[in-house]
Amino acid sequence: MRKIFLIGMGPGGLKYLTAQAIATLRKVDVFFLLDKPGRGKAELGDARRRILDLYRGPGAYRIITAESPPRPPAQDDYLDVVADWHARKAEILSTLFETHLAEGETGGVLVWGDPAFYDSSIAILRRIQAEHPGKFEVEVTPAVSSLNLLAARHAISLHEIGGDLLVTTARRLLAGGAKNFDSVVVMLDSNAAFARIDPEDFHIYWGAYLGTEHEVLRSGPLADIGPALAETVRREKERHGWILDIYLLRRGAATAPAS
Amino acid sequence: MRKIFLIGMGPGGLKYLTAQAIATLRKVDVFFLLDKPGRGKAELGDARRRILDLYRGPGAYRIITAESPPRPPAQDDYLDVVADWHARKAEILSTLFETHLAEGETGGVLVWGDPAFYDSSIAILRRIQAEHPGKFEVEVTPAVSSLNLLAARHAISLHEIGGDLLVTTARRLLAGGAKNFDSVVVMLDSNAAFARIDPEDFHIYWGAYLGTEHEVLRSGPLADIGPALAETVRREKERHGWILDIYLLRRGAATAPAS
Ligand SMILES: C[S@@+](CC[C@H](N)C(=O)[O-])C[C@H]1O[C@@H](n2cnc3c(N)ncnc32)[C@H](O)[C@@H]1O
Ligand SMILES: C[S@@+](CC[C@H](N)C(=O)[O-])C[C@H]1O[C@@H](n2cnc3c(N)ncnc32)[C@H](O)[C@@H]1O
Repeated sequence: MRKIFLIGMGPGGLKYLTAQAIATLRKVDVFFLLDKPGRGKAELGDARRRILDLYRGPGAYRIITAESPPRPPAQDDYLDVVADWHARKAEILSTLFETHLAEGETGGVLVWGDPAFYDSSIAILRRIQAEHPGKFEVEVTPAVSSLNLLAARHAISLHEIGGDLLVTTARRLLAGGAKNFDSVVVMLDSNAAFARIDPEDFHIYWGAYLGTEHEVLRSGPLADIGPALAETVRREKERHGWILDIYLLRRGAATAPAS
Repeated sequence: MRKIFLIGMGPGGLKYLTAQAIATLRKVDVFFLLDKPGRGKAELGDARRRILDLYRGPGAYRIITAESPPRPPAQDDYLDVVADWHARKAEILSTLFETHLAEGETGGVLVWGDPAFYDSSIAILRRIQAEHPGKFEVEVTPAVSSLNLLAARHAISLHEIGGDLLVTTARRLLAGGAKNFDSVVVMLDSNAAFARIDPEDFHIYWGAYLGTEHEVLRSGPLADIGPALAETVRREKERHGWILDIYLLRRGAATAPAS
């Protein structure tokens, strides 16, 4: 039996790690990192190494890296493509685990933000467990997600008093996903989908590169600031070569206090 | 100008604090605590004192406590009652801030879980700011929420691949809130609302007292385990005098892997 820790590292920067995550990464024997090509992805890989250098000491830990398989572009076959991509990642990772972890050793995988939100690590580890019954134990360390950080930066609650929150993706927002909701958090955008929906009376609370030195925040009525914000997204992407952004759409927030 | 830090402390236990939260509470001059009567509430107040004792040293910090005004029971007038209750808390807190914080000093309020989810602290601090323009600055420290911890304990993602997540309350669940959603997290229950809805093909991932020594986890098809789980809720409440529980309803999870 080998134990794999999926360690949520928070949404950027070193200071969002929990005491539990720090204690956990101190007991890991070997870290595994699937590196992605591309400039933004490289910076994310670097964030992982900075965390390990800080809490384990530079050169004082074992890390095995492999190149992550590229995700093929998907349209209508989205789910099939993703399932296929997970299968390939699971194959690579399980081989790495078997090669580099002795019986009784523990492996660690650092996950950006919280592992429960739009991250494939849990699905991939479950697939590995299913394909190698009794061989791997998995333990997940929860973390601050980018949605908690977005709310903290704007000093807002994510829903109205006693109300709902919908967490969704840009893809679903464009398909009409925000209709009939008062509070909607949108992730996985990067192409300013907010500027291509009916702004109704939505207020937008937007943040990019949260928790990093590139952090940018904007808020205001979507109808008023949407076009300029789309331009900001374009400019920031051009400047850094990549973007990570997230936003809350709150209905009628221009008149009601955020609470 | 006085600065107030709203410090998210995570969903129980000492180990969910982030490095940022620990650094922040080390620079606070005076902590403010609205103590609630009732057994569970007292335990939550104790959790705050344990955190401060650990990270500041017993007796090595200033803490001002006052009794929280009781929240009157509400039915249809829910929003009015809550607004009124916030107004009274804001009055008490702003008086405490003005009495106990000298100009330039910083105050701290520890918030259970993440401040952005079903907590009144942000709304109350915003109200205080609005009523005393230019007097108080507010900074929020994000934290692990009970929903991240629920997902970690069950080693699940909170949504299907690329899918939505609805975060809602028991009150809204009973009003039909889960209809048409694949993934629904329910908070503010404690009366087993899950057992009073049509179970359809929902799988339930349930957790109580997460992160504390009383932690209990259950999962299974809602139709099969719902009634026994309602009995567990009743028994645990009887045993401890209070309960904090949260759950994910996932459609069709019995056949599809959680991912
Ligand atoms: C693959 S998902 C991973 C989410 C991550 N597990 C979390 O809990 O935040 C990436 C998306 O999360 C959001 N995100 C993650 N980190 C962010 C950050 N530092 N600033 C802004 N958005 C971020 C963006 O919406 C981005 O498209
Ligand atoms: C007043 S709300 C505060 C939520 C908190 N701000 C958070 O981020 O978790 C209280 C509700 O949160 C959930 N909750 C908070 N802590 C919990 C815990 N340790 N275990 C289970 N549920 C918890 C329950 O649904 C409870 O009714």
